[in-house]
Amino acid sequence: MTAVSPTPTAPARLLEELGRILGPTGVLTAARDMDPFCTDWRNLYHGRACAVLRPADTHELSAVVRLCAAHGVPMVPQGGNTSMVGGATPDDSGREIVICMSRMNRIRGIDPHEMTMEVEAGVPLKVAQDAAREAGMMLPLSISSEGSAQMGGILATNAGGNNTVRYGNARELLLGLEAVLPDGEVFHGLRRLRKDNTGYALRQLFVGSEGTLGFITRAIIQLQPAPKEVEVALCAVEDAQGALALFSAFRALDPALIQAFEYMSGTGMALVNELIAGASLPLEQPAPAYVLVELATPRPGTDLRAFMEGVLADAMEKGIVTDAVMAESETQRANLWKLREEHAEAQKRAGASVKNDVSVPVARVPELIARATQACMDLIPGIRPAPFGHLGDGNIHFNVVQPVDMPADAFLARSHDIMDAVADIVRDLDGSFSAEHGVGQLKPYMMAEWRGGAELATMRRIKEALDPHGLMNPGKIFPPAAPR
Amino acid sequence: MTAVSPTPTAPARLLEELGRILGPTGVLTAARDMDPFCTDWRNLYHGRACAVLRPADTHELSAVVRLCAAHGVPMVPQGGNTSMVGGATPDDSGREIVICMSRMNRIRGIDPHEMTMEVEAGVPLKVAQDAAREAGMMLPLSISSEGSAQMGGILATNAGGNNTVRYGNARELLLGLEAVLPDGEVFHGLRRLRKDNTGYALRQLFVGSEGTLGFITRAIIQLQPAPKEVEVALCAVEDAQGALALFSAFRALDPALIQAFEYMSGTGMALVNELIAGASLPLEQPAPAYVLVELATPRPGTDLRAFMEGVLADAMEKGIVTDAVMAESETQRANLWKLREEHAEAQKRAGASVKNDVSVPVARVPELIARATQACMDLIPGIRPAPFGHLGDGNIHFNVVQPVDMPADAFLARSHDIMDAVADIVRDLDGSFSAEHGVGQLKPYMMAEWRGGAELATMRRIKEALDPHGLMNPGKIFPPAAPR
Repeated sequence: MTAVSPTPTAPARLLEELGRILGPTGVLTAARDMDPFCTDWRNLYHGRACAVLRPADTHELSAVVRLCAAHGVPMVPQGGNTSMVGGATPDDSGREIVICMSRMNRIRGIDPHEMTMEVEAGVPLKVAQDAAREAGMMLPLSISSEGSAQMGGILATNAGGNNTVRYGNARELLLGLEAVLPDGEVFHGLRRLRKDNTGYALRQLFVGSEGTLGFITRAIIQLQPAPKEVEVALCAVEDAQGALALFSAFRALDPALIQAFEYMSGTGMALVNELIAGASLPLEQPAPAYVLVELATPRPGTDLRAFMEGVLADAMEKGIVTDAVMAESETQRANLWKLREEHAEAQKRAGASVKNDVSVPVARVPELIARATQACMDLIPGIRPAPFGHLGDGNIHFNVVQPVDMPADAFLARSHDIMDAVADIVRDLDGSFSAEHGVGQLKPYMMAEWRGGAELATMRRIKEALDPHGLMNPGKIFPPAAPR
Repeated sequence: MTAVSPTPTAPARLLEELGRILGPTGVLTAARDMDPFCTDWRNLYHGRACAVLRPADTHELSAVVRLCAAHGVPMVPQGGNTSMVGGATPDDSGREIVICMSRMNRIRGIDPHEMTMEVEAGVPLKVAQDAAREAGMMLPLSISSEGSAQMGGILATNAGGNNTVRYGNARELLLGLEAVLPDGEVFHGLRRLRKDNTGYALRQLFVGSEGTLGFITRAIIQLQPAPKEVEVALCAVEDAQGALALFSAFRALDPALIQAFEYMSGTGMALVNELIAGASLPLEQPAPAYVLVELATPRPGTDLRAFMEGVLADAMEKGIVTDAVMAESETQRANLWKLREEHAEAQKRAGASVKNDVSVPVARVPELIARATQACMDLIPGIRPAPFGHLGDGNIHFNVVQPVDMPADAFLARSHDIMDAVADIVRDLDGSFSAEHGVGQLKPYMMAEWRGGAELATMRRIKEALDPHGLMNPGKIFPPAAPR
């Protein structure tokens, strides 16, 4: 995989040729210009690059990839630089070239008859969402980094988020794809077909390959009709078992209505209440755990509110839900969502924390939360587990905040103990060590243990077949190969 | 790809070793026993095999695949033998071994909390559907061969059918997968995770690979809650444009309600009316075209009937629909569906016909139908184009029936002219030459023109990486490679 490239070349001549293709503004080489592209936003990785390229279209990208491949120079695709796992940051060798997709940022069309949108890779998700909304439709993918994250990266990492429970991850929204392969060839798959059984599922393979198989350049996305009725409720529950029971109740009645189903711990909610200006719990008293549920339908006049009230009343009668409030206005709805969305920020303000983006089968979420909470508390007295996230997908962000009276450094020195303790439980529950954040350069060391044997071997064979010189985003996903 | 296997071996010793693994009933070698496995049900291909193997579990399959691989013997996976494109039939060399999955036919569990079902490859779709129904849920995949077609083949070919418009193809229903790779290694991917971003999308790749990358042995399928209200209507429309307008009206209001949306031509309906016992059009007079629409919801008490009546009344007012009837009972519902389901049988009784399983973007279906109908009529006077199928997916079975007064042979001699005429229009409309039937051995010759360049080259690289000796289902999907 990481076979040394055939003809390593000093970059001087290469840079000159790249400049001829991209023009003077398309090639950055000054350290201060390149810095923002060489550090990830979580500040976990500080790499170096021999250049940052900014192609304006597929044609330019194809030409520079061909050139880099000929010179044996490794390439790191970068979108909005919002990876949680260092997936778009170069290593510190200074040999890699970062190729930034931001200039390929046109929405190329919205087709109201097909309900599709064609975007270039560099379009920020928020821009695409807004364009869909202006056209009377919805792009049903929402993540906290949506203002910066770009569609190419969204697809390359198979991003998830709040609406996955209803509409799936990025992969499920994709109809067509154009990509530049590691040798510069262009894969033309910009089709708008819902059915097309003509060979291997290449576009599904590119989605989630984290830039290791090539550059996603354009995509056709399936849109949905805009919701006509939306209802949001915040519910107090005794524990995650109660949250799951509520989810099952909504799902049995109509999974298509559940636009989001988010779990929050009492600990996390208390931190939001305490540390975030303008956040306040609209319930009479704090609870051990909470659910934020959003229902939506594009069909007008179904009295979604009465439906939600009915389900909640029934759940309260059964003791599943102990208290609940439904938003009465757009403002109240935003306030309820704020309680969920400020979880990460509140935890940051509470001190050092350790993040685990894990998933388990949905019905095992209560066991995950109970066991991992206990395991963390056994490990470090006073530790504050504050799990939250997408219960409807079995995807919990099992974050833990340092004890109040412990120095941050001392806490962070235990990071790996905490991560290992959570991971052990996730494995025991047949879960995944990365639900939606991907592998990047943070987690390749986990691949051999979790996805080893024939699975990792097959992935390596595909990687070697499509990128025989290992030039595409080296060091991401794959652990270093064992010597043969 | 089709590199000659390393050590061609006379089968005698191999057969002996296979017998030791599978027992006497697990290896068929008599011609009369093998015959049913060597001919496809459409009677298009008559192959030969040196043996038919019937492993009972993954362990046995893995052992025999390892053995066949060591002996360089090509393997043809076979499920219910219902391929429309000869995808499970051996060639006529007599060198290939057919491996039949029928004995691996256990439903290994239904999890009501996860709403999942774990099946072995040999479970017939109908059996799996019934098991889901008995557990109060629905397996939302329905095709005409469901009584025979097996889950392994369903997944290997990414089968579609009537409910794709709502729930997607087989690929969208799959949560986890176990497969035996071309070298006999087992890929253990039987996970039940809705989110799992840990490397390449191998299970999506296996789905639709038509047995060319290995054997699907077990799968975990996402189920849905059973519908509580179902409404079926047959609508008369002026043409496919009217059918599309009606689809758009339903979709804009609530795509999640549309469980099926089927187009039928007036010609096809007349043949059903005339040639199928018990079929009769429940409208006052015949129309140029028809739509069968089925709405369903798992949510009780939504008055789905009133909703459907409202949409149809509005469509009639606008002149989109000229007449309509809604089923009043289960029997009437079955009778309406019979009009759609007997299309293939009626066409068979009407004489020779040519089938085209094509797809285009949904909004282009009317243009496809108008242009292809005209093109066929220009080609052969008196020809009877009878397109029908899944308008909601853009997937039309563009079948054409011979003229009344033409000898069948003379008509069939023009098959390729007809297929080419339809294909030219499909290409012009950015469509696909195989929407849901796959490529098999019937259509590899079309791959180079339709999916050529970097796309086919990338598929070939994956095939060569995972099956370097070309032992898995040779001659399927890929056209013979051009000499290098």
